[in-house]
Amino acid sequence: MKKREYPLGKVYGLLEPGPVVLLTTRRNGKANVMTLSWHLMMDFEPPLVGCVISNRNYSFESLCETKECVINIPTAELAKKVVACGNCSGRTVDKFKKFGLTQLPGTKVKPPLISECYANLECRVVDTRMVETYCLLVLEVVKAWIDPRTKWARTMHHLGMGEFMIAGKRLKLPSKMK
Amino acid sequence: MKKREYPLGKVYGLLEPGPVVLLTTRRNGKANVMTLSWHLMMDFEPPLVGCVISNRNYSFESLCETKECVINIPTAELAKKVVACGNCSGRTVDKFKKFGLTQLPGTKVKPPLISECYANLECRVVDTRMVETYCLLVLEVVKAWIDPRTKWARTMHHLGMGEFMIAGKRLKLPSKMK
Repeated sequence: MKKREYPLGKVYGLLEPGPVVLLTTRRNGKANVMTLSWHLMMDFEPPLVGCVISNRNYSFESLCETKECVINIPTAELAKKVVACGNCSGRTVDKFKKFGLTQLPGTKVKPPLISECYANLECRVVDTRMVETYCLLVLEVVKAWIDPRTKWARTMHHLGMGEFMIAGKRLKLPSKMK
Repeated sequence: MKKREYPLGKVYGLLEPGPVVLLTTRRNGKANVMTLSWHLMMDFEPPLVGCVISNRNYSFESLCETKECVINIPTAELAKKVVACGNCSGRTVDKFKKFGLTQLPGTKVKPPLISECYANLECRVVDTRMVETYCLLVLEVVKAWIDPRTKWARTMHHLGMGEFMIAGKRLKLPSKMK
């Protein structure tokens, strides 16, 4: 899937609605992917993203060590793979191979982009001061990519216990908010 | 709207999907409400919620001073009021009066619950260490309420510049994730 560069100043609009994301890391040459919903926007530009990741996760160790990741945003077509990635650990499984996910190289960071996801955000860890207390990492998005064919992304939003809401209709209102 | 108490251990499922929320504060007896999308879950139980609120907002001052708020979750029926609340400031407008929002008393905190919202989370600020750098406040949800008639909440999710996605279909998959 050929991606187009996406302006960093518009990245907030991809994460602010709260989609489930697939976070990729790479350590000792080996790529891994985890499913994540606990994220928030912290600044517009450069885009800062806060993520809470359990320190029991294999990806937590990789991210703390390598300070790099990619946030990949899947649509509902990938629902089964998204759940499958959350149901096992990179300690014992090569999830890319097992679930048929395709790696694309990033330009600014070593972890791979997931080709099947409609948007990919290359990130660097810029603040680890809240890791000890909350497992909260602050990421800066340093490069963003989007599939230009996806006009209306049917993102997945986790309601808990395997239940997801799929992005529905859109509504435009005269807002002064960014 | 008669609300039912909601288990604190299930609160994450209300915020994890990323809805736009209305945050109420009260200072010197006067209640205010702001529109907010920059939030994330930080722990399951007690539920901890991180919020980034611009320090230019009137509610930011109130929240830092009083250390109490209520997170109210609206559905799409309230879309116009949600945007209207974001388009003006509590410094000059009584938003409850102007937009016809009904206050209900909380049981643990002084800011009001918004009756028209389907869920209401009474919160206390428990950590302000990230306020100076990121305007990030950590809230603990101390009491939660839900409208028992709302089985399928059509929550609003902000895509930026006044565009919203409305919660669509649901999907249940065999997930091991909480």
